[in-house]
Amino acid sequence: MPTYDVLAIGNAIVDVISHATDDFLIRHDLKKDSMELVDAERSDELYAAMGPTIETSGGSVANTAVGVAALGGRAAFLGKVRDDQLGGVYTHDIRAAGVDFDVPPATHGLPTGRSLIVVTPDAHRTMSTSLGIASSVTANDIDPARVGDAAITYCEGYLWDADPTKAAIRKAMAITRDAGNKVALTLSDGFCVERHRDEFRELVVDSVDILFANDAEIRSLYEVSDFDDALQRVRTDCELAFLTRGAAGAVVVQGDRVHVVSADAQGPIVDTTGAGDQFAAGVIYGLTNGLDLALCARLGSRCAGEVISHLGPRPHRDLKALVAPLLAT
Amino acid sequence: MPTYDVLAIGNAIVDVISHATDDFLIRHDLKKDSMELVDAERSDELYAAMGPTIETSGGSVANTAVGVAALGGRAAFLGKVRDDQLGGVYTHDIRAAGVDFDVPPATHGLPTGRSLIVVTPDAHRTMSTSLGIASSVTANDIDPARVGDAAITYCEGYLWDADPTKAAIRKAMAITRDAGNKVALTLSDGFCVERHRDEFRELVVDSVDILFANDAEIRSLYEVSDFDDALQRVRTDCELAFLTRGAAGAVVVQGDRVHVVSADAQGPIVDTTGAGDQFAAGVIYGLTNGLDLALCARLGSRCAGEVISHLGPRPHRDLKALVAPLLAT
Repeated sequence: MPTYDVLAIGNAIVDVISHATDDFLIRHDLKKDSMELVDAERSDELYAAMGPTIETSGGSVANTAVGVAALGGRAAFLGKVRDDQLGGVYTHDIRAAGVDFDVPPATHGLPTGRSLIVVTPDAHRTMSTSLGIASSVTANDIDPARVGDAAITYCEGYLWDADPTKAAIRKAMAITRDAGNKVALTLSDGFCVERHRDEFRELVVDSVDILFANDAEIRSLYEVSDFDDALQRVRTDCELAFLTRGAAGAVVVQGDRVHVVSADAQGPIVDTTGAGDQFAAGVIYGLTNGLDLALCARLGSRCAGEVISHLGPRPHRDLKALVAPLLAT
Repeated sequence: MPTYDVLAIGNAIVDVISHATDDFLIRHDLKKDSMELVDAERSDELYAAMGPTIETSGGSVANTAVGVAALGGRAAFLGKVRDDQLGGVYTHDIRAAGVDFDVPPATHGLPTGRSLIVVTPDAHRTMSTSLGIASSVTANDIDPARVGDAAITYCEGYLWDADPTKAAIRKAMAITRDAGNKVALTLSDGFCVERHRDEFRELVVDSVDILFANDAEIRSLYEVSDFDDALQRVRTDCELAFLTRGAAGAVVVQGDRVHVVSADAQGPIVDTTGAGDQFAAGVIYGLTNGLDLALCARLGSRCAGEVISHLGPRPHRDLKALVAPLLAT
């Protein structure tokens, strides 16, 4: 049996969260609901314009690893931080959440990555990320012993935005497959799919066992305006796909099998940051515990429902207790 | 008319907040509800034991300045941060909240101060603070032009924990009085009062116009076990005192006048951090707008009621809107 249920490989990012109106997004030319990569200058300019913030550790698949650990799974994370204050906070938080993280902090180079997140009154989030040192994960950081030793290696599409990380992920995917384990990928963001559509299509067919995508991402992948058209395409392309649709719930597709699962809000919706990440956490916990696909998706919906009920992308409530009623049925 | 309603002088501290059980406090020898000063080693040891955190700007009277600004008052803050990441966050947050803060960050010395805050399930907070560079405010930092130019100079008892800041505050108090403005002081913490009881008693009689204290602090100041005994003492010692008692509300005492005002929770109680600071914000806003003492205390209670309804020591909701019904009567 592999040492870990999941090894997440992705950008180590500190979230810097502030509330603002839609007017703020317009004034600063921000695309609502998207993740935009920004340079240090643009980041500083936006930060100066933002209201008071809270800081909390984030990063898409890192959030998922934390969710899997919170559910009782064995999780590890591979990503890069600097030896600066935010890097120290990041390392503390992910370890305190029960996730193994042993990549040493970089002693020189760019600072720890951060994402400026604007939460609008409708609870939607718009992200401006300066990757900093996060994008310096290289193929050398992919230790075959570690990478081959997880039931699922979960990678994020965001990593395609930098060439060194792209090479690192391709290596990790190959090692995972060679070890007889599964490769999972999240498409991360609609604009990210636009930037890398051809490669993502090829990956989905050739290298990915389990695909995570939301409505906008899967439609962008296949350049179709209708969700069902995208659904029909992905069922022939990928062994197993989990497609999330916000308040409309989620769809699981595995060849001829399709499950449609409802959203599962756990209180008023405060901040949608991390909804997809925690959905994936529930699913991965379910898959690695041999649960059926519909139940995996229901676990995902409940975990997503928890994280959108508060500010920040990682669970606050006891996820084990929250999903226990689902597991008892 | 002075440029500012309030100039707050205090420790610039980043709060590092985590949830834990009472058992955690016992295991790590932490005194519930207190603020303990810790050295870097003890801070690191506690941080390593703490669960995942969120970071948010804090510092007692700085929180008050933010509250005054949120209510529409003119507020400034005087305190010290380093030119490190947390110092940058601190500076951003207080300015973004509308508070003037123009002390340049130190380019060498200790890091920006931080307080590890453990919130227990009963919403109480226990703080372990490493002051870092915060305690290096000196008399040289007290610019007579600035300090004499606020209707109220608001200082925190915590500053008595370091000799240089103590001298700075005595200078600020003298300048304020010479300019014909008012000196306010918060006793900060019961254990802080124990450390500096004699000096605090002398200050209250000789140098302070407006005193803020909670139940434990005022009883510690006079070494009495009964709140009413302390109340009778302070009414002869100090011109005007605002005494807070948590869920039991607040008492205002000015010579023969006494008002007893109820607590004013604005939702379920999540985290009591900053309750006293935001009470003071409402009071100071009221005093500087010429409102009567009972209404000042009611403003304070409502602002405190807001801040305890969420994690973190500064207001999340629109304080102006929240207190508008009180001001309309």
